[in-house]
Amino acid sequence: MRDFLPADKARRERVLGLIRGVYRAHGFDEIETPVMEDASRLHAGLGGDNEKLAFAVMKRALTTDALREAQSPLDLADLGLRFDLTVPLARFYASNRAQLPSVFRAIQIAPVWRAERPQKGRFRQFVQCDIDIIGEPGVIAEIELISATSSALAVLGIPGCTIRINDRRLLTSMLTALGFAAEAHAEVLITLDKLDKIGTAGVLDELRERGHAADAIEALSAVPAFAAFGAEAASATVSEGHHAPAAGGALTADSIAALLPAGVDEQALADLAAIAEAVGGTAPLVFDPFLVRGMGYYTGPIFEVAHPELGYSLGGGGRYDGMIGRFLGTDVPATGFSLGFERLIDLVELPADEGEGDAALVYDRDVAPANLLALQRQLVAEGARVRLVKRPKNLKSALDQLAVDGFARFATVSAASGADASALDWRPLERSA
Amino acid sequence: MRDFLPADKARRERVLGLIRGVYRAHGFDEIETPVMEDASRLHAGLGGDNEKLAFAVMKRALTTDALREAQSPLDLADLGLRFDLTVPLARFYASNRAQLPSVFRAIQIAPVWRAERPQKGRFRQFVQCDIDIIGEPGVIAEIELISATSSALAVLGIPGCTIRINDRRLLTSMLTALGFAAEAHAEVLITLDKLDKIGTAGVLDELRERGHAADAIEALSAVPAFAAFGAEAASATVSEGHHAPAAGGALTADSIAALLPAGVDEQALADLAAIAEAVGGTAPLVFDPFLVRGMGYYTGPIFEVAHPELGYSLGGGGRYDGMIGRFLGTDVPATGFSLGFERLIDLVELPADEGEGDAALVYDRDVAPANLLALQRQLVAEGARVRLVKRPKNLKSALDQLAVDGFARFATVSAASGADASALDWRPLERSA
Repeated sequence: MRDFLPADKARRERVLGLIRGVYRAHGFDEIETPVMEDASRLHAGLGGDNEKLAFAVMKRALTTDALREAQSPLDLADLGLRFDLTVPLARFYASNRAQLPSVFRAIQIAPVWRAERPQKGRFRQFVQCDIDIIGEPGVIAEIELISATSSALAVLGIPGCTIRINDRRLLTSMLTALGFAAEAHAEVLITLDKLDKIGTAGVLDELRERGHAADAIEALSAVPAFAAFGAEAASATVSEGHHAPAAGGALTADSIAALLPAGVDEQALADLAAIAEAVGGTAPLVFDPFLVRGMGYYTGPIFEVAHPELGYSLGGGGRYDGMIGRFLGTDVPATGFSLGFERLIDLVELPADEGEGDAALVYDRDVAPANLLALQRQLVAEGARVRLVKRPKNLKSALDQLAVDGFARFATVSAASGADASALDWRPLERSA
Repeated sequence: MRDFLPADKARRERVLGLIRGVYRAHGFDEIETPVMEDASRLHAGLGGDNEKLAFAVMKRALTTDALREAQSPLDLADLGLRFDLTVPLARFYASNRAQLPSVFRAIQIAPVWRAERPQKGRFRQFVQCDIDIIGEPGVIAEIELISATSSALAVLGIPGCTIRINDRRLLTSMLTALGFAAEAHAEVLITLDKLDKIGTAGVLDELRERGHAADAIEALSAVPAFAAFGAEAASATVSEGHHAPAAGGALTADSIAALLPAGVDEQALADLAAIAEAVGGTAPLVFDPFLVRGMGYYTGPIFEVAHPELGYSLGGGGRYDGMIGRFLGTDVPATGFSLGFERLIDLVELPADEGEGDAALVYDRDVAPANLLALQRQLVAEGARVRLVKRPKNLKSALDQLAVDGFARFATVSAASGADASALDWRPLERSA
């Protein structure tokens, strides 16, 4: 967990403002939920491994008897800090559905907490930027999510990203077609998810070690996309970048099917083709037949933002049609896309904040405070940001610091200056080299 | 703890933006600290009664043996949610001092948590807006805080507020002058703090019941401000409102001293007079000789925002020169002013959000998504906020909802519409009565 000093805080808020602005422009509405949820909701099996990383908040006024009688730490906790924004959104929707539009487009820009071991690039408190569409069963929802996300990446000026897509129904139907038993799918997917790291031989070895059906493993090795993996032909690239037109082979139901075994889900093929047709010309879309995404709750298209220079994704998401029903009782279709803000922020190149209106009044100790405030008020009314600075012994060093802090000009105020801001003698502040 | 739906969230963010803007204009810098602090810091005795209301976050990976061996619940917690923004600021300053200006003006606009019993107007998660000045021992710091706070109240359009001021040194020196023993001061102040509720007779009764020195109680009853309390002469009003000039008796060291027993702290008198001279003409300042403020850490001027129609304060603060030394080892002067956002928000009258750029595209099911996205992109590039709406069975009801949600215009898109936004036929959306 980190402190954010003024320059960092200002930068973070500017970038969050850009993301929020793009999402709002695309018709999404921002909401906010409490940072704590009931422990029973956080541990309902919807958060995958993240549930184990939830910070538990203790019940109040616990007696020592209660401590003795507890069978496990969670008996002493009734609340927890959210580990993602998806479980809270599902709970929010179930609580507030009557007041929301029938197709609800949510923005959540907020911190989440995970009790990870501190390590580079992993924080215990970090901000996620999520957009979700609830109530729309059709692929137009995914199209809107990908369009808004790729616009946000463009506005942030992060070049070179690709959005990898796949569909859980394709994965499941592929495993079935290959001969993996339904109850083995979850474990096979965990191994397949390591393909980028351990390669095809590693995946096949691990599947054999875990005792999966030899015929199915053999069949997997013959899947065109799998066999071609490493030759970099496993991905059918739709477009090479934000502004490049669709390159080479356009992504169609046929071109996807050609990479997979016979018998995969037809609706999933059609949906991915529809997504590609709608956004392929503007978003850097890539079909990745072995994209898995960790969470068990995905039911349809899944996506991930990849960057060639990074070993981790900048964001991801997918359709989770079953989850809201867990809270509401009746199923409601839903799909979402999350950007990992902490992973993005260092890649963003912001134009320097000009700070043209920022002014410092360097005053002598005998200036009447009422005059000083009168000067400040006049300048603030003109739109300036005004800092009052008691004249220090080392004026030069103080002026340098003001320049670093983004102040563009200063004027000195003496007891003789009076209270008329138009009489001030401004001088520019410039950063020393 | 509450969910915030889109309209509420938008309103809250607008008001927070106004407050942030005023504070930034007055030269303050925003920072952010993690929501959790070490339990040992939260329970260091600086938070008064609020410490008992801190939510405790459990240690991770606790064994059942650890549960059995715990002597108290806090043995199982190493972190807690902050209950205010002052303790985290003191810790922040101690951690980051080398990178901060010698006089540091901090803005913190952030949630805090208290495990209160749910009741009207009390929330377990609520936002505070704090400004603090660290490193300035002189009364110019309080003058800046009061000036910025009264500007914020003016920008929010909350009329009728007064800022009540007093000084802990005046209270302490008064009690000493009256003959209360130093070790009795804390308890006498708790009783005096109830003056508004139980009146002078109630205060005197309670002091007698608690066995305080009869001579001192007798002397208190003869203090001019105390004797006059209820006759509404206890407060020396500096000005009646934001724009009114100083009324009747201006607040000076002499006019304050006349309300108090002989022998009160001279520096405190001079400081309050200096504050009044500087801000009395523009801020609605009132001297309240029995303003106590609950926290034990105050060491100098204290203030509170009162509103005639409310039974509680909208904010408050004061000087706490000793606190940062608890974390840093060496004392650093500090003073702060906090606004209670949840208490303010309902009083703010915002101009209606015009939403002139907000547009809805109502599309038929057979429109190509690529065309729809192309239309949206063009409009977003022109600065509009654009929501895509699949044509519903009940169009009128959907249009009414869009108007309620702030959308100002809509156009229908059919398969024949093409992808040129300039050809769209816009119609206004107006809220039904």
